[in-house]
Order: sequence, then structure tokens, then C-alpha cells
Amino acid sequence: MFENITGAQLKSMSLGGLTALCEELRKKIIKYVVQNGGHLSSNLGMVELTVALHYVFDFPKDKIIFDVGHQCYTHKLLSGREDGFTTLRKRGGLSGFPKREESAFDCYNTGHAGTSVSAALGIAKARDLSGGDYDVIAVIGDGSFNNGLVYEAFNSLKPLKTNILVIINDNGMSISPTVGSMHEYLEVLSADAEEQYHKNRRAGIFEKFGFEYDGVYDGNDLAVMIERLKEIREKLKTQSVILHVLTKKGKGYSFCEEHPEATHGIGAGKPSVPAVEYSSVLGEKLTELGAKDEKIVAVTAAMTGSLGLNPFFEKYPERAFDVGICEEHATILCASMAAEGYKPYYAVYSTFLQRSFDEIIIDICSQNLPVTICIDRAGISGADGETHQGVFDLSFLAPVPNLTVAVPKDKDEFAAMLEFSKDYGKPLAIRYPRACTHSFGPVKKVEAGTWEILKEGDGRAAILACGERAIARAFTAAEKAEKSGVRVCIINARFVKPLDKKMLDALKESVIITVEDNMAAGGFGSLIAEYFADAKKRVKVFGYADSFIEQGGIDELMDDYGLSAESIADYIIKSV
Amino acid sequence: MFENITGAQLKSMSLGGLTALCEELRKKIIKYVVQNGGHLSSNLGMVELTVALHYVFDFPKDKIIFDVGHQCYTHKLLSGREDGFTTLRKRGGLSGFPKREESAFDCYNTGHAGTSVSAALGIAKARDLSGGDYDVIAVIGDGSFNNGLVYEAFNSLKPLKTNILVIINDNGMSISPTVGSMHEYLEVLSADAEEQYHKNRRAGIFEKFGFEYDGVYDGNDLAVMIERLKEIREKLKTQSVILHVLTKKGKGYSFCEEHPEATHGIGAGKPSVPAVEYSSVLGEKLTELGAKDEKIVAVTAAMTGSLGLNPFFEKYPERAFDVGICEEHATILCASMAAEGYKPYYAVYSTFLQRSFDEIIIDICSQNLPVTICIDRAGISGADGETHQGVFDLSFLAPVPNLTVAVPKDKDEFAAMLEFSKDYGKPLAIRYPRACTHSFGPVKKVEAGTWEILKEGDGRAAILACGERAIARAFTAAEKAEKSGVRVCIINARFVKPLDKKMLDALKESVIITVEDNMAAGGFGSLIAEYFADAKKRVKVFGYADSFIEQGGIDELMDDYGLSAESIADYIIKSV
Repeated sequence: MFENITGAQLKSMSLGGLTALCEELRKKIIKYVVQNGGHLSSNLGMVELTVALHYVFDFPKDKIIFDVGHQCYTHKLLSGREDGFTTLRKRGGLSGFPKREESAFDCYNTGHAGTSVSAALGIAKARDLSGGDYDVIAVIGDGSFNNGLVYEAFNSLKPLKTNILVIINDNGMSISPTVGSMHEYLEVLSADAEEQYHKNRRAGIFEKFGFEYDGVYDGNDLAVMIERLKEIREKLKTQSVILHVLTKKGKGYSFCEEHPEATHGIGAGKPSVPAVEYSSVLGEKLTELGAKDEKIVAVTAAMTGSLGLNPFFEKYPERAFDVGICEEHATILCASMAAEGYKPYYAVYSTFLQRSFDEIIIDICSQNLPVTICIDRAGISGADGETHQGVFDLSFLAPVPNLTVAVPKDKDEFAAMLEFSKDYGKPLAIRYPRACTHSFGPVKKVEAGTWEILKEGDGRAAILACGERAIARAFTAAEKAEKSGVRVCIINARFVKPLDKKMLDALKESVIITVEDNMAAGGFGSLIAEYFADAKKRVKVFGYADSFIEQGGIDELMDDYGLSAESIADYIIKSV
Repeated sequence: MFENITGAQLKSMSLGGLTALCEELRKKIIKYVVQNGGHLSSNLGMVELTVALHYVFDFPKDKIIFDVGHQCYTHKLLSGREDGFTTLRKRGGLSGFPKREESAFDCYNTGHAGTSVSAALGIAKARDLSGGDYDVIAVIGDGSFNNGLVYEAFNSLKPLKTNILVIINDNGMSISPTVGSMHEYLEVLSADAEEQYHKNRRAGIFEKFGFEYDGVYDGNDLAVMIERLKEIREKLKTQSVILHVLTKKGKGYSFCEEHPEATHGIGAGKPSVPAVEYSSVLGEKLTELGAKDEKIVAVTAAMTGSLGLNPFFEKYPERAFDVGICEEHATILCASMAAEGYKPYYAVYSTFLQRSFDEIIIDICSQNLPVTICIDRAGISGADGETHQGVFDLSFLAPVPNLTVAVPKDKDEFAAMLEFSKDYGKPLAIRYPRACTHSFGPVKKVEAGTWEILKEGDGRAAILACGERAIARAFTAAEKAEKSGVRVCIINARFVKPLDKKMLDALKESVIITVEDNMAAGGFGSLIAEYFADAKKRVKVFGYADSFIEQGGIDELMDDYGLSAESIADYIIKSV
């Protein structure tokens, strides 16, 4: 009924028509997300607000930045991209995030939390400098609002002398329920919203930063949203404004309303709680270790459930800390507790660990403190695309002194590495993908810098592989190569730092092939290449080439970006 | 008169005695810093507050964390380290920062801004968990207070349910004068301090986060400081407190009071404004480019002067942005202005760029936006030690797709690279040390991915060197090697990304030696090692080995950590 309706068409519609449109948009979102997978709950909460924004503002002339970006589906449906939804988050298909490359309606790509206000300020300042006449809007959830970047951006609103609209989309959830004083403050503002409804209320903190505060309103009430945005649009000529709205995550789909955390991101097919994987090994093992050693504490930046930490958080609430989407603060909290004799475990997605890079160097490693970093979703993560691939961690961790970097071959070895970490007494990072899909036999005793021969060869070629995905490809490649008569040695290179030099030196006669689910530049293979650089030895590095990795299926992306078993096998056959 | 006085001895002294002690400490700081170099102004401002802290609290049982750490000299003088001051910031000598390795009085190492409140929370939480009974204090300047980390830490005070004291040492300065709304708010709180003096005043923002606010007081008034701290110490049993004090940067030394920015950090000898160096080339050239192209904007995180940006800021104030110590926000501001057609230049010290790592990947490079990052103080920076060496940037930038990384051979080439950057249209990083000490002839036209042969060889060995320090060592090494009859080719490897593959391929007969003022792991040499890994070619990487680099003279550190010209020459002689 409303196929590919645009913002321009919206403007001539009645409130009744717009309300019907909202219902249809909601149905479409459910249909497409159930079909293709994607972010459901946050998008269902954003329908009315987004329709109101398109009704009141003129996109793409006006600019909108969605923080993190999960909640942009209605915006995409209203900007000529409905046809793309059948390919949502698929290879070559519509992105789950705002993408400049995709549409003029997306002015700034997002993916990581807290960037929207800074970006809105930069865009607004550019507008002022070039004499442009349009509005700039940042839409940010209460979860992202915990990130320090927001404070940095707020702090520079006045010095930058520009006007923006920040919409706080308050649904009480990050991926986990939102924590922290700022969220408590938002709740205080919301508490008596009932009686003060529609009255202009004061919010001291925001006014100090130079915003006029307008809230709290029901963000799922279309008429109210339109009225507020119309009034605010006038104000933006002279003033920056915060609009604080409450929305219901999962609105209109009862399963999501009841399970907002589990349905934050879902796979294709019926929405369901995702199966437990490496994260569940972490949760189970850490809970077990926590019973033996009361110095063990766990820290997460708003992802307790998806990192598998629920069992630990339930059993040891006093030793479990969710600090909100604050990866830097989380890292220092770990370092400082370690400085006082605790054994902190910081669990985090690989892509978000990039936020902690400086603190890993300065706070954890230069003080040589026993923090264990559990890096989940390492390697290609798939459908979220460029901003979420965990393909940099081996490269950025390799040059950090005092750090040990481990990559388990499978979940049993991961559990053994966690056991090992308890009394290791030094900074340790363990990286692993989401899914446990392979198993490679009994676990060899875990000692730092020791590898394991998984399969003996004939001495002509050895594959050094990091992690289960790389090892699986090594086996497939070896099998292919064996048809040409070469028996390939396969080594579980389970420590990227330190290297197993004894084993490396024993391989001097072989051609060496390295395989890792990481960028080639600066990763495991580059350490091996450098190790043998002066030895006139053949080393071939299989890792990802120098480009961003788009969205798609994990296996197809691994094949296409440089890790196909065929290419490994071909190299071996032609090289020995 | 007060040689090596300790906190314990302090407690029995009269106010008169303590006042005399302050004067003597101030004299000592001036004497030692003028002798050895160091941070002068911030330390002179902190004398009375630190004496009061030692008088009231029991260190090292109580714990104190100095944010950034420049201001800890009085604390060091009062904790048995006076003898070390003759070696302040020298190789093997007393650190200019708090150092756990140095004294039990230093509980947490600092160096980068904004970490102290997070660290205090972690330490306090560890205390609570283990049933300890001591106080935890973070001392933070108003400059660091702009950093988002502080907000993240404040935001988790209530959920962590622990008590700390945060002392805001408000002197109106970062290295540059402090900017931003939070600082403006601190000023508002200070404005009527005169009339409200000694009265308990309210500060809504801080109370929202769970602190009791106590301020504003004269931090250079010893009696007031003692009185406040005594009262606060009692309160800390049940409550977290912010103590807001005003101090005078450079207090008691008129040259410093008049030139607080120039005397923030000074070299040995008479305090003076540091000589201009690479930073002055940046300032001059960028101002020149700014006249030709009004799309050029400059961004800094509180270091306008030390990065050389003053001329640009003075000439184009509307296109110049100091956002305070907010490296992440600064990076996104650049990316978003670039998204709207501007050409942002983000100038920053190498060590602080680590804070922008995620935003370089996600905001600048995954959107392929034309931001030029000018990385100052790259390579070993010397006397500040482990937390300030700029030795990771080539490693962490190498794996980032879409990024071009340039390293000028000297200041003329730096100017040419800046000229080149104006219309390059893609993400570009240029890294350089502080001092221009060498010059290597006329500049070959700058094109991305092109190198320059500085000296032809006899085909047996080629040194690929990045940046003036590495090139200088290459020449010295080549000279030594020539005595053994080998004529070494020297190449100015001025682009680390992309590599000059044409030139590399032409070198196939030579032994390759790479030299860089950066970690060996993941740096320039590792890219070369990987490039030739499959070619049975000898490559030798000279970069820093896998350890943190302590404080010292730049040349001695370069020699000792892996870049001595002798070791390069020796390798060449024995390898060809």
C-alpha cells in the first residue's frame, strides 16, 4: 500500500495516513528482519519518531546521523531503499547501518557507539563555514549516551558555536539494560513525565553544555513527535536542542518486547535467542574459576549476555561489573583492580577493543598487570560489515610489549587457556570467533609460547594456523595438496606472542604457510615473515589483503578476501 | 633544612614549619627542573596541596593517583626520592611520572589524560572487595577533566558503590588554556568563590553523579587545604567527594607564571621557550595553504602551541578548533567535516593518537575521507619515558585500509608532503619527530607510494630507511660498511603505505636492510619482510624489539633499543 514512499510524499499525508504507514512499516521491518536477520527491537521502537522526522525535516538536504546505526531501517524504507531489504545484510546487499555509499540520505557512516554527536557537530560546523542552510540531527540511544565521546562532544558545543538537534532515544537498553548515573538522570527526568507531560522541563546538566532541553515525550506517539519536531525546527535557527523521548524497544512485536536483549540482533528465520557458543565456554569456565579464586572479577562494556557472562554475573554479582558502553574506562578499571591484586577478565568484541588500544598499551601492558582480555567475535564477523569485522586485533596487539596473545584451536583449548590464565600473572589476550564449529582433538598442556603439531608432514611444507577457522582451512588445503603427493604438516599456532621459536627452528627445511583470520599486515604471518626474513626461507602469508571487508557470510568472505583453502592448496602444490 | 622529609615526619610539624617547608620544596623543584629539565609550572602550583595531602592522609597506605602525572614532584620529594632528583628524567634515573616500580607511594602509573578517576574507582573497589581500610584519591587538572574517560568513570561511581576523593586542580590550563563547557562550568563555580568562600556550595552536575561537591578553595593556601582535607577524610567513610581547588600554574616563579604554556615542560638549563622544529614547518605551511584553500581546517586536542599551530589559529580562527584533551572527538570532528567537503588537518602527538585508533579505522578510513593526520613526536621522544614514546604508530596504522602513511626525510620534504596533501583527497598520515636535525638535499616530487634513492650502491646491499633519524643512521652505517669495500644503496622510504613496489622489485639482487624509528613488530620492516617472504631473499629489519622503552636521551635510546649504526653496519658487512 505504501511501497517506496518518500519523505516528500509523506508531507502531504494526514495523521491518519501516517499512522497507517507506521503500522505498515512495522510489519515490513518484522518481515524483512525475520527473513534476512538483522536488528529488530531497536528498529521497531523507532518507527513513529522516524516518520515524524521525515514529515517535519527535508532529507537529504537536512542531515541525520544515527548513533551506532542499528535503528535506521525506517529511515531506509523512507528513502527509496525498500527493494534492497530482501538483501539486507547479505553480500552485496543493503547494509544494516547507514552508508554514504548507499544513499544521499545517509550523510555519515556509523557502527561504533557515541560518535553521532561529534559527527553532527562537524557537519553543522562545515555547514556554517560554507554558508549552508540545513539542520543537523543526531539520534542517540540511552546506551550510547554513556560513552565518553558524547561528553567530549557536548563539551565542545559552545566553543564550536553551532546548532544541532540531539534526540535521546531512551529505551532503557544498550544491548544489555543501560547502567550508570547518566541513565539514572534520564530516568529522573522521565519519572514525573506523566504529570509534567508536554510542559517544557528543565535539565540542568544539558543546559550547562549549551542545549535547550525538551522532554520527556512518548517517542511512539506520532502526533506528539510531529508537534515537538515542528517547534524544535524553528528553535534550531538560534539554538541547540536536546529532545528526550521514551520508546519501547521491540514495540509492536510481543516476543521482542519481552526479550529485548536476545532480539537486539537476530539471525535469519524465526527470531530466537542465539545459540551459545565460545561465549558460553567463557561464562561457564569463568564461573567455575570464580569459585576457586575470589580474586577473579569480570568486566564488560554493556554486553554481558552476548559475551556469555550471565552465569558469572548471577553467581558473583559483587565481582561483576557492567560499566556501560565505555571500553576505555572498562580497560582501566581492569588495570587498576589488577594493580591491587585482583585478576580481572575483560570480555569484549574484537572490533570494540579498538577503543581500548591506548589503555591496553599504557594502563595494562606498560604496568605489566595480569588482566586477561577475552576477545570475542574475532576474525570476520559477517553480516554487520566493515565496522564490525574483528580483523585488526592480532595486528594491533602484536607490537604491544609484555602482552601474551593466545588463539585457541577450539572450545576445549579455550577452556584450558582460561584455566591457564588464572595464575599466569601477566597481561594476556585470548581471541576467538563467535561460533564453535570445529574440534581438533585433545588439548596439549597450555604453556605460553608453545604450539602443537596437529598433523605430521613429509618435511616439505608446514601450515601454521591460528584459531579454529584457519586450522579448518589448513586441513582442507592439506587434503587437496595431498592429492598431488605432498604431505603437509599442520601446526596449531596457538600463541601469536610469544612465538614457539623452538618449533619454528625445527621447521627450517619446510616451506612455511601461515593462515590467520586477520589482516595480513602486521598480523601473525608478518611476525613469521620477519622471523625468517634473514634466512632465505620461503614464507607465504595468508591473511586479509589491504581493504575493508564488506558484509556477507563468514565463509564466503573468508574465501574472497584471501583465505580460500584452494588458494592455500595451490600455493603449496606449486611451491614444494 | 628539610632533607628527605617524609609524610610521617610532616604530621608533627606546625603550620609555620609546613609553610617554610613549602617554600623550600618550591626552591628545590625549580633547582632540579632547571638542572635536568622537566615539568615546572604544574609542579610549582601543586606544592601546598601535596603537603596538605601528606599531612592529612597516610601514604602509602592511602593511595593517590595523579592524572597524567606531571604534577607529582612534591609527592616524590615527600616520599624519600629527593636523592633521585639529580637524575630526573635521565636514563635510569627518577621518572617524571608516578611509577609503581619506583616507590610504594606510587600505586598506579599515569601519563595519558583522564585515567585517574577510573583507576581510583578500580583501586577503591578492590579495597572494598578485600575488606581494606584506606582512602583513594585522584588528583586531576581541569584540562584532563575534558576527557571523555572522566565522564565514563563518573557515570559508574554509583553502580560501583564505592567511595573516592577526586581533587580538581583547576589552573585554567591544559598545555594550552583549557576550553569547553565543563571548564566554563568550573569557572562559574569559581566566579563567586570570593564571597562564598569556605561555604559549602552546590554543584548540580557532580551531585547527579553521586559526589558531594566541596569548593572552590585556594589550593595554594596550605591552612585551608589542611582544614578541607581533614573534614573530607571523615566524609570519605560514607561518601565520595569532589574537592575543587584553584591553583596558580608556575606559582612562585615569575617567568613561569607569565609563560605557563611555554614552561609546561622544559629542557635542561635555563627555562626558555622551546625552539621551533617540525611543528613550526606545519604551522607555517598550513597557514600558507589555508590562504590558498578555504576548505582547510585545523584541529587539535589541547596542544595548539606545541604542535606549531599558533600561526594558523591566529590567522584563521574560524577554521581552527581546539577541542580540549579529546582525541577521539577531535578525530570524528575531522572525519565529519571531511564528509562535508572540508580538508581537515588533525595534528597530534604519536602517543596520543593511540586514543584515536578506532576512529581512524571506522570514521576516517572506512569512509575513505580526506583527513590529514600530522603525527608529531613520532619515534622515541626521550625523557618522558614509556608512556610517551611514539613508537607504535607505523605498526597500528599499517593494517588500516585506505590509509596512506608518509614519513618525510626532512623538513623540506615535510613541507612538500603538506603541499601534496591538500589535493590528495584520501586519508593520509604523516609522521615526524620533534626536531629537524638533518637535511637530505632537494625534494623529489611527492607522489603516493614513491621512494627516492639518496645514494646509489654496488647492488649488494640497500638500506630502506623511514624518516630523518633512520636515514641519518643509514648514512653512518653505510660509511662504516664502505670501509669494508661494500657500497650501500640508501633509499628514502618516504611512504610506508603504499610501498614503492617498482623500486622494491628493482632491488631483487640486494640484501635489504630496513631501518625505522618504530617497533619492529608490524612496522615498515615487517611489510618489507612480508613482501619478500616468498622470494628467498634476505631482509633484515632494524626496529625496536619487544619491550617498553624507558626514559633517556633520544640517541642513546635509539642505540640501545636496536637502531645503532654499528649494528646496521655490522650486519651489512657480514651479510654481503
